[in-house]
Amino acid sequence: MGGEREEVKLLGVWYSPYAIRPKIALSLKSVYFDYFEEDLFGSKSELLLKSNPVHKKVPVLIHNNKPILESLNIVEYIDETWNSSGPSILPSHPYDRSQARFWSAYVDDKWFPALRAAAITKSEDAKAKRMEEVEEGLLRLEEAFVTISKGKPFFGGEAIGFMDICLGSYLVLLKAREKLKGEKLLDESKTPSLCKWAEEFLYDDTVKNVVPEIDKVAEFLEKLEAMTQPAVSKS
Amino acid sequence: MGGEREEVKLLGVWYSPYAIRPKIALSLKSVYFDYFEEDLFGSKSELLLKSNPVHKKVPVLIHNNKPILESLNIVEYIDETWNSSGPSILPSHPYDRSQARFWSAYVDDKWFPALRAAAITKSEDAKAKRMEEVEEGLLRLEEAFVTISKGKPFFGGEAIGFMDICLGSYLVLLKAREKLKGEKLLDESKTPSLCKWAEEFLYDDTVKNVVPEIDKVAEFLEKLEAMTQPAVSKS
Repeated sequence: MGGEREEVKLLGVWYSPYAIRPKIALSLKSVYFDYFEEDLFGSKSELLLKSNPVHKKVPVLIHNNKPILESLNIVEYIDETWNSSGPSILPSHPYDRSQARFWSAYVDDKWFPALRAAAITKSEDAKAKRMEEVEEGLLRLEEAFVTISKGKPFFGGEAIGFMDICLGSYLVLLKAREKLKGEKLLDESKTPSLCKWAEEFLYDDTVKNVVPEIDKVAEFLEKLEAMTQPAVSKS
Repeated sequence: MGGEREEVKLLGVWYSPYAIRPKIALSLKSVYFDYFEEDLFGSKSELLLKSNPVHKKVPVLIHNNKPILESLNIVEYIDETWNSSGPSILPSHPYDRSQARFWSAYVDDKWFPALRAAAITKSEDAKAKRMEEVEEGLLRLEEAFVTISKGKPFFGGEAIGFMDICLGSYLVLLKAREKLKGEKLLDESKTPSLCKWAEEFLYDDTVKNVVPEIDKVAEFLEKLEAMTQPAVSKS
């Protein structure tokens, strides 16, 4: 499959980790696509509402008029559709595939929700408890990385794979928070392998061309926080 | 792959919809397996704790000493590992696969959590709101079924597939609740195609041999409710 005459559209927002995922996958497979930036603070496009009536969320991939939804589902679709171009995103052995899917679900369903909950709660106790979960999660992921990568630079081995895309999509957000709040989650002394992996990931040519600038995301996060803070003067 | 000398173990609990899934998948593929019943009310087995240290939950499939976790992940693993025996569980076309994965995620992450929340909340208002979501979800699933099945008996076409296993695994629970509380969620007048599908699914030979009896599940639910109710006399 694949080829120049296919119509591939991607609906996303520039700062979303989830929208970064199909961008990386499409780039790995050298698939040309038209990108449409959505305005989630204004009104959502007709195309988004029509393509994803259930969740009304980005990213949405539209391939020859058929919408594919949910970021990791889209990445699997890209891997299966353009299976002869570029590297394979999921590993080839069923056990390795099940590991990639398991850890990706862990990251999306457990680890990141804890980080998000820590970021929005007003209670200092709740925040501390959630941050403990986040750090515990990173230790688990460090261990998983060492086991899965077997000394190679990525979860996917020599090349970026499914789990790299999943966890890697959050890195710019982590770096932006580090810049903004001095919150250093990836710490050399606790998760040395993940730290090295993160560097390799962000300096990869495909990724570099696709992820937003850390400064720009930090600025966006600052604006977002100001919007959601009560309107009292800081003095 | 496959063959008689492989060691396949499944850890589950008899009443869990999630543990039903790998049982159906293994049966569809005619894979012989040893089943180990866990006691989640007593103490979990060493094998479970060792195999799933992150979530400590069932089901766990252990294939030649390697644990595979999360019910739908296990079903995909079974489909990929024993790919030459029995019917294919996931559809062959990437778009159809993405649909099966999307709707399965919808069922597990949105629809069933709403039903569970309705069942445990003490507030009548919250219960009514959640039940509205559950019913709205069933209407969406009715529409999805009509689109995907194209007049055939299952989401998977002529044979039981991924999405059938996912949604179908909840059917015994639904029927048990119907028996216990008179709560009729699958209603001929609202979701006629899903009602017909549910009948076909539960009367399928593979499924019949694997799912628990509705009466037994109803009895279990009743005991469970009595355990979690405050100790006041009903008068």
